[in-house]
Amino acid sequence: MLHACIISTGTELLLGSTMDSNCMFLSQRLSDLGVRVITRFTVGDNHEQIKNAFINAFKLADLVICSGGLGPTMDDLTKEIACEVVGCKMELVEEEVKHLQEYFARRKRKMPEGNLKQALFPREAIILKNSKGTAPGMYLKKHGKVLILLPGPPREMQLMYLQEVETLLKKDFHLDEKQSASCTIKVIGPGESQVDEMLADIINQLRGCSIALLAHDGEVHIRITAEGENSSHSKQILREISGQIENTMDRYVFGHNEETLTGVVAELLVSKGKSLAVAESCSGGLLAQMITDLQGSSGYFWGSVTSYSNEAKVKFLGVKEETLESYGAVSRETAEEMARGILSKSGCDFSLAITGTAGPNGGTREKPVGLVYIALAAKDICTVKEMYFAGGREAVRMLSAKTALDMLRRQLQYGGI
Amino acid sequence: MLHACIISTGTELLLGSTMDSNCMFLSQRLSDLGVRVITRFTVGDNHEQIKNAFINAFKLADLVICSGGLGPTMDDLTKEIACEVVGCKMELVEEEVKHLQEYFARRKRKMPEGNLKQALFPREAIILKNSKGTAPGMYLKKHGKVLILLPGPPREMQLMYLQEVETLLKKDFHLDEKQSASCTIKVIGPGESQVDEMLADIINQLRGCSIALLAHDGEVHIRITAEGENSSHSKQILREISGQIENTMDRYVFGHNEETLTGVVAELLVSKGKSLAVAESCSGGLLAQMITDLQGSSGYFWGSVTSYSNEAKVKFLGVKEETLESYGAVSRETAEEMARGILSKSGCDFSLAITGTAGPNGGTREKPVGLVYIALAAKDICTVKEMYFAGGREAVRMLSAKTALDMLRRQLQYGGI
Repeated sequence: MLHACIISTGTELLLGSTMDSNCMFLSQRLSDLGVRVITRFTVGDNHEQIKNAFINAFKLADLVICSGGLGPTMDDLTKEIACEVVGCKMELVEEEVKHLQEYFARRKRKMPEGNLKQALFPREAIILKNSKGTAPGMYLKKHGKVLILLPGPPREMQLMYLQEVETLLKKDFHLDEKQSASCTIKVIGPGESQVDEMLADIINQLRGCSIALLAHDGEVHIRITAEGENSSHSKQILREISGQIENTMDRYVFGHNEETLTGVVAELLVSKGKSLAVAESCSGGLLAQMITDLQGSSGYFWGSVTSYSNEAKVKFLGVKEETLESYGAVSRETAEEMARGILSKSGCDFSLAITGTAGPNGGTREKPVGLVYIALAAKDICTVKEMYFAGGREAVRMLSAKTALDMLRRQLQYGGI
Repeated sequence: MLHACIISTGTELLLGSTMDSNCMFLSQRLSDLGVRVITRFTVGDNHEQIKNAFINAFKLADLVICSGGLGPTMDDLTKEIACEVVGCKMELVEEEVKHLQEYFARRKRKMPEGNLKQALFPREAIILKNSKGTAPGMYLKKHGKVLILLPGPPREMQLMYLQEVETLLKKDFHLDEKQSASCTIKVIGPGESQVDEMLADIINQLRGCSIALLAHDGEVHIRITAEGENSSHSKQILREISGQIENTMDRYVFGHNEETLTGVVAELLVSKGKSLAVAESCSGGLLAQMITDLQGSSGYFWGSVTSYSNEAKVKFLGVKEETLESYGAVSRETAEEMARGILSKSGCDFSLAITGTAGPNGGTREKPVGLVYIALAAKDICTVKEMYFAGGREAVRMLSAKTALDMLRRQLQYGGI
């Protein structure tokens, strides 16, 4: 089994002001590939600390992956030190200089002197393209060991790993044949302990298989890992257990593996040729933002109104002033009028509306913080769900938006929420 | 300055299935105490890995804090190995045996055999009480070095650290008087390498002070740490350098330490009694979401329209169809009409509007992906900024929203963008 060490560099990590999400991502991906991570090191932007980590890492493992410190500034030291430790000289790579110049030209900015060092690489290195920033990564084989350098910003690092590193690792270490098989089933609705209870019978009878539950922003991800005698045996176990879990969780299941709730809803809208408009109050634009996070959303998303004030609810959505006076902004009636209002103004097939109290202030005894009304409207229907969410402002907003999307998913998938 | 290493043990951490929140907590608390964390190690529940980590950690630092592996099971090895490395024998501590027996008696459970090892400690150790679980921690001084062992579950670990460890550290290392002083200056506008260039003269002449730059969602955070001969000397150095940096970065500076751009804008709006409405296209609700992330935003935020379709721009914002036809949705003219439209419909003091191409598709030669127009309107003014953002859809949206907020900040702070 291939052993690996992961190094994260960045003084901000040691100050505890930034969460080191890179090492978690890399741990997970490498484990999934069948690589055993032996030790993770986190060091500051400090020559001696970084050098020590590389020396120790290469003592422990054949594969060393490091993120951070590839930037253009003086405290970006990783590449220089790593090359020093493995005994490689760097030279200016003309092609990379050209890439950098083009990068800045496209942005109509002059390239600072410091960026030039991002074009320095050992002759024997494979240079890894960075499609999100200026710092290329590096993959280097030497004396049977592999050194991989990745940029620190998680977006850049993850993309580079997925697009370039994984293929190289699979090839160099013959990691294609994976004995275990795994998948994730994603549900929304019940909480983690509720899912645990629902799956108790299955979990108690597991053989050659493990199940882990991960609660995440109102979703529960059920991670199943089967370890049979060989790859096809593992896949068979996985199929069986997944089938049982899907049956049990039924309509709560919204997707698998990399699928997201927004993505699933988007696909349903596109495949059925339907359009959507949104009206938000307490979620304050979050639902619209989640929908438009996806490229191509302009194909089915008409737009939204964030009616944070009552005036905006009346003016843009046609909510009646009497309704606001009699029932309040946080009410089943207002939610319904918001949904119907945006539906008729937009002429869309579906609309979603959210109104509630996200807190921390503004709650009353009858209408506590966390009370949210979520409406789904279409030509002949309007359904309103009354929800009580916990967990603070951010959670209430997130759960409201997710529940709204899930109502639409169920409507599109099953013809009812 | 006292140097420390942090060790986290637990195979689940190396599999990437669990976030290592302990090391972040410890990093932060130790930094706040003026202790410099030199390296963090994460290792599995494996004798050799744990031993290696302790040996390396004691080579690097005088203080080694480890969390995890104090439980009753066979893979809980930390205490045995740590004592082996520092050369201390363990013996059964009668009082701890009694605590354990009481713990189980209270829960009406028989104590498993394995738990007995939780009462084993070196004679010279200070035993740290665990009010949330069965595993006591340990504080050991030997040859001028300090070894601290804490349980793995974050609740237990944090409480033990706060209730016991901090006091002992302060006493043993005279940490009450924090010697170093640090602060963060936050700027928006220039990129990381541009800030590096602007500060080059200051950075090159630094004495008793270090500067780290951290790029983060379009912002650059300048972290300054001064290490003088004593606390007041450090503070004096910090004041001087901060002053120089503030002068150089001037209007790019939007905040300090924990301040956020949204928070700063909110405070300015509140203190001047001004209101805001927003119209978004490519940012798709993100700006509204950022504004309403803050509690109390209903006090100054009227609402927003996410006009993702042209129809919504015309219907809700009063953008002229001729404007869309002649100049296109992504144009200076449309941005201006969106801002003026929402300003007049809402009757607010200020409005912000964003229109652009977030990509990845939809770009043309004249209007490439990343081109965004951002407008700020008030009663007598309307300013439009043309920006070219890079980094993919998510970055373009984020940078658009941030730039819009920054335009409003400058308008409120300096009376012009």
